[in-house]
Amino acid sequence: MTKQQGLEALADCRRRIDALDARLIEILNERTAIVEQIGRVKRDLDLPIYEPRREDQVYLNVLAHNQGPLGHDAVRRIFERIIDEMRQLQRLRMTNGQ
Amino acid sequence: MTKQQGLEALADCRRRIDALDARLIEILNERTAIVEQIGRVKRDLDLPIYEPRREDQVYLNVLAHNQGPLGHDAVRRIFERIIDEMRQLQRLRMTNGQ
Repeated sequence: MTKQQGLEALADCRRRIDALDARLIEILNERTAIVEQIGRVKRDLDLPIYEPRREDQVYLNVLAHNQGPLGHDAVRRIFERIIDEMRQLQRLRMTNGQ
Repeated sequence: MTKQQGLEALADCRRRIDALDARLIEILNERTAIVEQIGRVKRDLDLPIYEPRREDQVYLNVLAHNQGPLGHDAVRRIFERIIDEMRQLQRLRMTNGQ
């Protein structure tokens, strides 16, 4: 591979990553909207926000779908961050009564 | 909303979240495969793995696509985790010469 070919390959990879990231952010926001809906239902039914058994199910579902190359530990850490951010937003919404 | 209706709404929300998570993990792995490809090109061209200017571009792209309800800070923290996990994998692959 010449340097020029390598740089073109890098530019192509980066375009593909930017396109994937746009899809990721769209799905993450779709997921957040559903989490907010869950928050409203839980508030109406007076249920707790944090349900560790449900979070376990989320991890099981995600790891069952993980075919790599990301390792299970990496996937778990990424979803811990996603779940944590959405739980914080749910808490905020419930406190604000939105 | 009756308790029964609420519980059904929750179950429906959770099915939708599980489906979105399956898509998220698929896209994350697709992204990882491209990051690995970038790692191979960089190794061939003897370029550094960590390029802060490119990471800035990644955040700019993601935030430009963020239409909420996730806040920019939350999005940034989620992508910091994603990028960090993939950088670690890239490092590992380069060290192992894969």
